[in-house]
Amino acid sequence: MLSTRGYASTNPTSTLEPFHFERRDLGPHDVLIEILYCGICHSDIHQARDEWGGSMFPMVPGHEIVGRVARVGSAVTRLNVGELAGVGTMVDSCRVCESCKDGLEQYCAKHPSWTYNGIEQDGKTPTYGGYSSQIVVDEQYTLKIAPNLPLANVAPLLCAGITTYSPLRHFNVGPGQRVGVVGLGGLGHMAVKLAASMGAEVTVFSTSKTKEQDARRLGAQDFVVSLDPKNLDALANRFDFILDAVSAPHDVNAYLNLLRRDGVVAMVGVPAKPLQVQALSLILKRRTLTGSGVGGIRETQEMLDYCAERHITSDVEVIPIQQVNEAYERTLNGDVRYRFVIDMNTL
Amino acid sequence: MLSTRGYASTNPTSTLEPFHFERRDLGPHDVLIEILYCGICHSDIHQARDEWGGSMFPMVPGHEIVGRVARVGSAVTRLNVGELAGVGTMVDSCRVCESCKDGLEQYCAKHPSWTYNGIEQDGKTPTYGGYSSQIVVDEQYTLKIAPNLPLANVAPLLCAGITTYSPLRHFNVGPGQRVGVVGLGGLGHMAVKLAASMGAEVTVFSTSKTKEQDARRLGAQDFVVSLDPKNLDALANRFDFILDAVSAPHDVNAYLNLLRRDGVVAMVGVPAKPLQVQALSLILKRRTLTGSGVGGIRETQEMLDYCAERHITSDVEVIPIQQVNEAYERTLNGDVRYRFVIDMNTL
Repeated sequence: MLSTRGYASTNPTSTLEPFHFERRDLGPHDVLIEILYCGICHSDIHQARDEWGGSMFPMVPGHEIVGRVARVGSAVTRLNVGELAGVGTMVDSCRVCESCKDGLEQYCAKHPSWTYNGIEQDGKTPTYGGYSSQIVVDEQYTLKIAPNLPLANVAPLLCAGITTYSPLRHFNVGPGQRVGVVGLGGLGHMAVKLAASMGAEVTVFSTSKTKEQDARRLGAQDFVVSLDPKNLDALANRFDFILDAVSAPHDVNAYLNLLRRDGVVAMVGVPAKPLQVQALSLILKRRTLTGSGVGGIRETQEMLDYCAERHITSDVEVIPIQQVNEAYERTLNGDVRYRFVIDMNTL
Repeated sequence: MLSTRGYASTNPTSTLEPFHFERRDLGPHDVLIEILYCGICHSDIHQARDEWGGSMFPMVPGHEIVGRVARVGSAVTRLNVGELAGVGTMVDSCRVCESCKDGLEQYCAKHPSWTYNGIEQDGKTPTYGGYSSQIVVDEQYTLKIAPNLPLANVAPLLCAGITTYSPLRHFNVGPGQRVGVVGLGGLGHMAVKLAASMGAEVTVFSTSKTKEQDARRLGAQDFVVSLDPKNLDALANRFDFILDAVSAPHDVNAYLNLLRRDGVVAMVGVPAKPLQVQALSLILKRRTLTGSGVGGIRETQEMLDYCAERHITSDVEVIPIQQVNEAYERTLNGDVRYRFVIDMNTL
């Protein structure tokens, strides 16, 4: 077993504190990655505080992982020692169900082994995430990272990047389309960059007027303060696609009504309470409300390659691991532009 | 002007009573249809009682109209005197917006002129529906009715038929697919017939165990009493498409969770209160919640031709107009299998 250092929470109300645990020895298909950077995703906080229920403790969060390959199993062909590698939200899945075969392992019919707060495919071994010195992952669930981008800024692509890229691609966002992005946070700022890079005309909806300059810098052509309903009413029946990245309570009908016929609102934020949806908002223009969860391994690699070619990365604030609890509070207050990334060398 | 007899409600709490009014004289593109049968749609009741707000009185309901052409304007080419003809939920639309050009007049960006409780394209003239002796309609908004089917049973196709046919077609329901139909009423019974005719394996979800035999006779292969959550849990992740035809309050998440990845729940019923939708129900399988409203004129004709070829019609109970108020009460009690149709000769 491989002795590993990390930070963990031990119960829903605890802070994250230093934690020692063991990773499995490398099997023939495994890769040992020395973790260099790990992003802080809002879902880390939800899970560390058991806000979605079912959290398992001790919990080492983190699923926006980039590092360097330190060792490989005897059968590994995908990566070589010394290369950069990434791990996203999954470290395994059943590999035989229809979704796994379709390269959509996140929708695995058995259960994906989430990178942390999850269970390995043996049905019993807990998973520990990227707030740690190293990780052992089957090569099929690793990503290749191009060396041309600043590595700290790449880390959030592993979750925030793919979570927004996947629905933009699945719903064929492209030139000539009007795309709305609701909420300019970790997910939202990636959605703006990616949708703009795909040629869409992007409008950002935010409760915070102070983000307008950023929104435009990131690629938005328009910015709307969403707190005033009049601002929204003026845009009715206008949008082809709206990505809703807000997990705070909000009125999704207001955005459904901005869609033209056959338009789509895709939820990537996870509000704790049910959305209130007026059936007529859907029926009168055959509108769609859908949701999308991260992306499969193949598509995540596609997204990383896409971003490497276009020099797209996340806007980050790099912190030492000792500031992780403070970073959680600042994330909850929206006080980060736009993603905290932990420098794991500080561990 | 053409003196016309009908039945109207004069306020949200009144019963329907005999009413005399005038139709416009025929313009060059108009058709005068002597009405033979008119179906009673649940939405007639919602609107007569102003349950959706904005109802205009006096109101002559009815948008499942079949009859015989009595006279045609000088430029009419689509229909001849003596032929059968139908009118559905619309009598006009702007004709120039994208939806109208796409043959989806029901989503007209200006406003469709609904057949009753609506406004003509002049923006002021109220429309009166099919609980009446005759109607004047622009030929472009009339439907041709094949003579080989029992006419009373054809009437409900003009709303219940197209409202279910359109989403089944739009979402490509076909052989090998598992389709659910929620609610076996006027819409639901047509959905079962149509989905089965398209080759789908149909399951009916109903609160009433007593409808099982009917469901199977109509073409369903399975029947589930929806009141017991255990019955639904057993069917999780199974369905490609579910048509939800229930306008009473109900838990739509229960049906979303029955969808496989990328499955679709389409609302055609209009619950008065917002649907409570768990974002995770959508996100975890990239499921879609959508809605669909009737269908365009072209597609309505396609549906009528499809039904004529396959001898598909509605199961109806024909009543004299003098029983319309009683029929409303029975409809609200679910006491009709499956559509009341008024014999307008009784007027």
